[in-house]
Amino acid sequence: MPKVTEEHRLARRAQIVAAARTCVIEQGFHKTTMADVIQESGLSAGAVYSYFKSKEAIVAAIAEDALSAIDELFEKLLASAEPLSPLMALERTIAHVVTVAEAPGGDVTRVAVQAWAESLRNEEIHEVAKGKYCQLRDHFLDIVRRAQADGTVDPDVDPLHIAQVMFGMIPGFVLQRLLIGDVTPETYSAGLRALLRQ
Amino acid sequence: MPKVTEEHRLARRAQIVAAARTCVIEQGFHKTTMADVIQESGLSAGAVYSYFKSKEAIVAAIAEDALSAIDELFEKLLASAEPLSPLMALERTIAHVVTVAEAPGGDVTRVAVQAWAESLRNEEIHEVAKGKYCQLRDHFLDIVRRAQADGTVDPDVDPLHIAQVMFGMIPGFVLQRLLIGDVTPETYSAGLRALLRQ
Repeated sequence: MPKVTEEHRLARRAQIVAAARTCVIEQGFHKTTMADVIQESGLSAGAVYSYFKSKEAIVAAIAEDALSAIDELFEKLLASAEPLSPLMALERTIAHVVTVAEAPGGDVTRVAVQAWAESLRNEEIHEVAKGKYCQLRDHFLDIVRRAQADGTVDPDVDPLHIAQVMFGMIPGFVLQRLLIGDVTPETYSAGLRALLRQ
Repeated sequence: MPKVTEEHRLARRAQIVAAARTCVIEQGFHKTTMADVIQESGLSAGAVYSYFKSKEAIVAAIAEDALSAIDELFEKLLASAEPLSPLMALERTIAHVVTVAEAPGGDVTRVAVQAWAESLRNEEIHEVAKGKYCQLRDHFLDIVRRAQADGTVDPDVDPLHIAQVMFGMIPGFVLQRLLIGDVTPETYSAGLRALLRQ
């Protein structure tokens, strides 16, 4: 496929995903229809459907895009030469969440919260959310195994149980940021440093 | 007011709140209408409206009921004679969340997740959620101050920042329990013990 066509395809796809983000942030998942996304995107219905068959598929693409940069973040963490600690991984992840949330195109953590609610009654969205969160938690699992090897975490504890707690700190940060509004990477970092073994 | 009448009033109120829980769990917040709650409750529209003017008011009552037992939990924790640690408070809170979630009448944590999503676009629900979560976080703040006095937590760190992280561990437990399904108070406890200073 010629390069210009592939670029065009990716730009169109991004345009649809951005339109869907805007719609879900403004109206919630439930009220958003494919017609809304088509109108917001400025593309034809045929064009939009040629990329995505349903709003569930677009939400999967939003999740895919939002989490794509996080794979790189964890790769960098694992490549670090110094001993890796849970604190370090959590601080980097939370800073990253805020960077992604504040990026142009609407706060994607708002879409995530809509997806959590929708997951409880929509099997397709549930599968997307479960898959993405298992993938993210697996990153923490890699961190834990590395930290256990580095001696910063007790090697006798099941790494999955530690990864559950580490991953489990992220939604609470996101929710407090959106609903209460007084958490920042700095306040969380201070709290984490006081609570965690180092 | 004669006692029987007050009892009757409380029973009716509980009947409406239970009906709303069922509706929100089955249909989500958005699709649930007052007409649905009225039908589910088996009461007349006039009866339901004499207790609650809107579904937002019923959701506030669901939150009130779900969190009422938690005040008592924290009172007990603070009354304990032994030195209080963040670990102890978190373990008790998570065990309590599962007890409340598994109580008859439908898993109220599912209603909570719906309320998180609705909060982002409904100011009335936002105020309810913010108020309730600040109340819950204030309990953790009391725990942190006590733990700082007991010497189990660094007294030089802002207790609010520590309370943010402690409170922030609960939504991630709730979400993993609902979306992934492999966390229990026991797995979380093992993870917490490995991660937290004790």
